[in-house]
Amino acid sequence: MAESAFLAPYSMHPRITISQAAGHENETVQIPGWLFNLRKSGKIVFPQLRDGTGLMQCVAVKNALPEDVFESIKNLTQESSIIVTGKIRADARAVGGFEMDVEGLEVIQRVSEADPYPITPKEHGTEFLSDRRHLWLRSQRQHAVIRVRHAVIKAVRDYFDSHGFTLVDTPIFTPAACEGTTTLFEVNYFDDEKAYLTQSGQLYNEANAMAFGKVYCFGPTFRAEKSKTRRHLTEFWMVEPEMAYADLEEVKRVAEEMIISVVTQVLETRGPELKTLERDISKLERVAAPFPRLSYDEAVKILQAKGSEIQWGGDFGGTDETILTQQFDRPIMVDRYPSAIKAFYMAPDPERPEVALGVDVLAPEGYGEIIGGGQRVHDLELLLRRIAAHHLPREAFEWYIDLRKYGTVPHGGFGMGIERCVAWLCGLEHIRETIAFPRMLYRLRP
Amino acid sequence: MAESAFLAPYSMHPRITISQAAGHENETVQIPGWLFNLRKSGKIVFPQLRDGTGLMQCVAVKNALPEDVFESIKNLTQESSIIVTGKIRADARAVGGFEMDVEGLEVIQRVSEADPYPITPKEHGTEFLSDRRHLWLRSQRQHAVIRVRHAVIKAVRDYFDSHGFTLVDTPIFTPAACEGTTTLFEVNYFDDEKAYLTQSGQLYNEANAMAFGKVYCFGPTFRAEKSKTRRHLTEFWMVEPEMAYADLEEVKRVAEEMIISVVTQVLETRGPELKTLERDISKLERVAAPFPRLSYDEAVKILQAKGSEIQWGGDFGGTDETILTQQFDRPIMVDRYPSAIKAFYMAPDPERPEVALGVDVLAPEGYGEIIGGGQRVHDLELLLRRIAAHHLPREAFEWYIDLRKYGTVPHGGFGMGIERCVAWLCGLEHIRETIAFPRMLYRLRP
Repeated sequence: MAESAFLAPYSMHPRITISQAAGHENETVQIPGWLFNLRKSGKIVFPQLRDGTGLMQCVAVKNALPEDVFESIKNLTQESSIIVTGKIRADARAVGGFEMDVEGLEVIQRVSEADPYPITPKEHGTEFLSDRRHLWLRSQRQHAVIRVRHAVIKAVRDYFDSHGFTLVDTPIFTPAACEGTTTLFEVNYFDDEKAYLTQSGQLYNEANAMAFGKVYCFGPTFRAEKSKTRRHLTEFWMVEPEMAYADLEEVKRVAEEMIISVVTQVLETRGPELKTLERDISKLERVAAPFPRLSYDEAVKILQAKGSEIQWGGDFGGTDETILTQQFDRPIMVDRYPSAIKAFYMAPDPERPEVALGVDVLAPEGYGEIIGGGQRVHDLELLLRRIAAHHLPREAFEWYIDLRKYGTVPHGGFGMGIERCVAWLCGLEHIRETIAFPRMLYRLRP
Repeated sequence: MAESAFLAPYSMHPRITISQAAGHENETVQIPGWLFNLRKSGKIVFPQLRDGTGLMQCVAVKNALPEDVFESIKNLTQESSIIVTGKIRADARAVGGFEMDVEGLEVIQRVSEADPYPITPKEHGTEFLSDRRHLWLRSQRQHAVIRVRHAVIKAVRDYFDSHGFTLVDTPIFTPAACEGTTTLFEVNYFDDEKAYLTQSGQLYNEANAMAFGKVYCFGPTFRAEKSKTRRHLTEFWMVEPEMAYADLEEVKRVAEEMIISVVTQVLETRGPELKTLERDISKLERVAAPFPRLSYDEAVKILQAKGSEIQWGGDFGGTDETILTQQFDRPIMVDRYPSAIKAFYMAPDPERPEVALGVDVLAPEGYGEIIGGGQRVHDLELLLRRIAAHHLPREAFEWYIDLRKYGTVPHGGFGMGIERCVAWLCGLEHIRETIAFPRMLYRLRP
């Protein structure tokens, strides 16, 4: 291993990343990276370099290089770490628009032929790849998904940061359950005390909204569901805005505006990644206001007409969501679900108390619920009745009840699951690819 | 409660936040918020309104208002929720530069005199306030700290997003321990499997850096330390960048540049909050490159000269850090600690293997370590020897070892604790005020 050469580069050429190539046309530069692929054609070898910012086709000509350098290039193995020196040349046929004529190459580590890189260009099974997730992330497809994920998260934060929301992180350790304890992960806190991992920052968000007006939290949430579906992770990230002095219509307006902002920013900044994923972006370009708005009642009628067995009062299953969203070319907003199937804090419609002032946003193309939210109960007496009716321990909710005693106001918000949003934007079959190290029922490693 | 009036505002005046007042001078507007304070002076009442974006001094003149409106203003209680209508008027004496001449007021909820808002302008003890953290956040000081925290987090993300780093979230549930298991929180995963809450995303970051070149993770981390100091939380947020093809000097350069970027952005965007906190910002304005760089050896000598009992080979205590940082007017970088007191993955100095290529950044004014990082062991054989010497189960680290087999490169990074950084920037005595709902040894509520 040529460590000293790395620490004191042997050439004075600028060291750049592949993404910076456009600014160095006809210049000799150094690019450190890994060998992605190698094609040989007689006296010319084409090493393809990856460096985490892109792919660069390199051209090594036997006659133009010292023999030992050409030989070491020819014998490179997949994922060997190398620093390539060469001249950047525009080439319309190349990925990224540039190629590099190799002038020199330093091998940091040549991967052993006896223990070669396990993920070859051939097909591998999902279990095989998932066990090697730490390496699988180097593949073009996984790399693209995580880059889209980054863009989604940045777009979400940019939206809230530029619309007057204050980020207030809510706690991960919580003493009480938000919606029952059966799907909570329990942690041994100190001296036999129990803590639970948060499923939602919402209750805390409500306190924060009374202090800051408009807030959001953004962090990991946890659900100990024993379900093994393509839509569930045990650990997933969620953004949750909450607004004081806001009603259901305002919640819907913000959700719509935020989603459009996210889709727009992803389309603007992640074109190459969406291309790698072979995503049909015409479907994303159609995401514009207004999103179709329908009531739960209307949704049930549509589903029944399409052959679903759903009855008024029941919750939508995954198949129902798929059928419903396939009727539209953009996300849809379904509001006023039966109060009975919604959480205790959901405000009733004053004109029709059997339905809640809640809204779900369902992504198109069968991707299902990406947002759930609505207006909260802000009346003290009603909240107390709800807590009693749901058999919740009032003591644990005293602080939450305080919010209805000391200057209560109508308020609302929503939660958006980042992984489901990424799955939709990337057009993925399974949610496990939307996060670097997915955690599922039978998947805790690596 | 006048909900209908809220949902269908009675006036056509624009509804604004206090922070938007400057754009509405001499205009009649509506501002929803809460009564922060009320001063009476005969036929004039001065309600002070807060709305989460600022404070607005309002002026209600008896002769200018219907009698019932004036009476209801006069009888307002602290933290009552109100929507005030009035004309914005510039006034150099006022907080924020504007006052409002009240033309109307709608009371959403008048806080009961029988159960008044518990946090009055008088002094309260910390336990009393901590038990009411959900309300304490409404106070000016706590509000300011959380707003600075938001600015710190945004500045950190802006720095990495604009310097070629890809955000790759690392898992919270981990199967193996990064640095021993005694300070880990254990979670019952499914079917009697155990998971541990992450203490650091670093090991995963290293895999991600080999896939993306430069990465960062940013999320909550957990430490089950039974210590009750003013510098420790059990749940705290950490940002951790990691870079492939980087050495210790590059880690130091990035840490310095990031800190300066954060301090600059906080000074630019949070002037009013720092003023509320009575922070001496001249001390923050001095934070500029280059930060003093000293070796562990030099630091030990300075400490011994100042009377510390530290011997070469020992780790610095909180008092040592305080003494050390008081010698300088900006953050300092201490590198090359003894390998024996550092983690197994820390690269040795090739010229002096008994010290590690690690660096700590200590904040000035006695705020102690805010960053720890360095260059990692990238040589396969050395890593295997280290894992054996530290009695770590090799099986759990196979994936981490893979990174040294398949194109290993020199790499490094660091972690910065957000709460310690916020405590320093805000000039706080205790770290518990740096997060909305702090979690400590004896504090899991609310």
